[in-house]
Amino acid sequence: MPSFTVYKGNKEGFPKKSNTVTPDALVGDQVYLKVTASGVCGTDLHYRHVDMVLGHEGVGVVEEVGPQVKYLKKGDRVGWGYETDSCGHCQECLQGTEIFCPERALYGMTNFDQGSFAHNAVMREAFVFKIPDNISDENAAPLQCGGATVYTALSDLKPNETVGVLGVGGLGHLAIQFAAKMGARVVVLSGSDRKKEEAIKLGAHYFFAFKGQHQIDLKSAPKITRLLVTSAVQPNWNTLMPIMANNSRIYPLTYSTDNLPIPAAALNLYGISVVGCLVANRAVQRAMLEFASFHNITPVIEKFPMTEDGIKDALVKLENGDVHFRSVLIPH
Amino acid sequence: MPSFTVYKGNKEGFPKKSNTVTPDALVGDQVYLKVTASGVCGTDLHYRHVDMVLGHEGVGVVEEVGPQVKYLKKGDRVGWGYETDSCGHCQECLQGTEIFCPERALYGMTNFDQGSFAHNAVMREAFVFKIPDNISDENAAPLQCGGATVYTALSDLKPNETVGVLGVGGLGHLAIQFAAKMGARVVVLSGSDRKKEEAIKLGAHYFFAFKGQHQIDLKSAPKITRLLVTSAVQPNWNTLMPIMANNSRIYPLTYSTDNLPIPAAALNLYGISVVGCLVANRAVQRAMLEFASFHNITPVIEKFPMTEDGIKDALVKLENGDVHFRSVLIPH
Repeated sequence: MPSFTVYKGNKEGFPKKSNTVTPDALVGDQVYLKVTASGVCGTDLHYRHVDMVLGHEGVGVVEEVGPQVKYLKKGDRVGWGYETDSCGHCQECLQGTEIFCPERALYGMTNFDQGSFAHNAVMREAFVFKIPDNISDENAAPLQCGGATVYTALSDLKPNETVGVLGVGGLGHLAIQFAAKMGARVVVLSGSDRKKEEAIKLGAHYFFAFKGQHQIDLKSAPKITRLLVTSAVQPNWNTLMPIMANNSRIYPLTYSTDNLPIPAAALNLYGISVVGCLVANRAVQRAMLEFASFHNITPVIEKFPMTEDGIKDALVKLENGDVHFRSVLIPH
Repeated sequence: MPSFTVYKGNKEGFPKKSNTVTPDALVGDQVYLKVTASGVCGTDLHYRHVDMVLGHEGVGVVEEVGPQVKYLKKGDRVGWGYETDSCGHCQECLQGTEIFCPERALYGMTNFDQGSFAHNAVMREAFVFKIPDNISDENAAPLQCGGATVYTALSDLKPNETVGVLGVGGLGHLAIQFAAKMGARVVVLSGSDRKKEEAIKLGAHYFFAFKGQHQIDLKSAPKITRLLVTSAVQPNWNTLMPIMANNSRIYPLTYSTDNLPIPAAALNLYGISVVGCLVANRAVQRAMLEFASFHNITPVIEKFPMTEDGIKDALVKLENGDVHFRSVLIPH
């Protein structure tokens, strides 16, 4: 098992080719993967200046298995996402919420020499997910974090809900598909009318352009019981309150270092909750892949070669909000 | 049925004696009550300048019943709170969340000639609650809104939770008692150590004074799974995030016209929710009274005569944060 090619963040902000030295032999339930596709996520932009291997929407093929691997074998297609390890013994791990394990390995926090902007990776069998046969590698990649994140916010959806999706991008275009296939009414809120036709095609039942409006007029659409905020920029919270149903929930899914200025009186008067959630626990990630497979949920992707130039192009496009709708890097 | 004495808000901000003219006869399920006690709530302060009868923590005795009254009879002791009517036909009413009925009658929004700062009141049987025998009128009054509000935030408590109570006042001192009797660990956060002894006596297991601290150190106390913010002034949200457990909830119960500046990154990283809720639906209000009766939950009250002077004293004391812990007006 030789060292392998990876792409690391650095102070210029555009990932450079580097090498990760692999251990002499796999230990425990480690698997050695050949990466076949990697999504590019907003979080990668946040870490582009950090000396670490970027990427956490990985898909690959098992090339070698460690001594304690139980279910995977050479040739299996797997994906991995934002969390790549947890302790397995704490209360969070025992109750299936290992995403909150105090020893969790989350992207950008540990495991700096592994990532999906790479030709290979060493991962734990326990933290990779078999890709259903009818999902291609390149389509499976954006599901590992983008898909997992929106699915988590929808994972306790009840019948007859009205799901709002604010922002039609990497996360939003998946949220529309998942929510529609779950039977929800889907109300899309977007800056302009530019993405209307495509949103409707993805499953949206209502579409409203809101940029510059002091009040969003839902017209005949029902009030929103669950709003997924997936826009890169924070919405005006005062315009959102009147379109929310009683006892509804808002999920601010986009990573932000800001404070959310949430109107307190409206929150209580209409029983609205603002719900924090973090990608997916493994049980949810697996359910998401099953659901996507059954319903043919397919990301809309743009492909780039996994090279220094290709990664740069993908990151610049993401930063400018021009990706349609998720970039996927393909190793040559 | 003659007209009766009420106390109304006015532009000076100190309620004046007035009269409410009653209809010739009770209709539907109306009951005519003799008020025996009324709590004084923070919301009364907000409406003190409005030309309306103040008070929404009422307790009284049934004096007369309307033609469609089914269960109440003359002499029954009943209480009422923040909501005094709803349509009975909408989805919210049908599913027991009538507090969000679009035609709800909430304090300060409709029904301006009835209130609990009064010697009498005409209410609907459907929106008054029988007071359990072992709860006195004066102790039942603060439960109708203060007790109902904190009980709502605790009504889906799970075993083994750690409940934080921020602020030991009208709501906080009841939250401590309810949470402790529900079997939760109770962590009280207060400005100073002044109320420590009493909070422990009410059932608190941990007490921390936090004023001026940039970080709250919970020491040996477990992280908080559910925090009830009952302080009159907004806390520093950045100091709260680190003391919250994963997947925990914060209930900002105090009425505020401000925005809550909630740190977005912490919300998602630890899966924290900020939950809006509004007093109690009737089923919850009834359960609250049963629970309070069974566990002898007793408000700590200060009594004032229900006169212009008595009400003024109570409101001034409430405004200054000097009430220990809930004021109750007693008609002479």
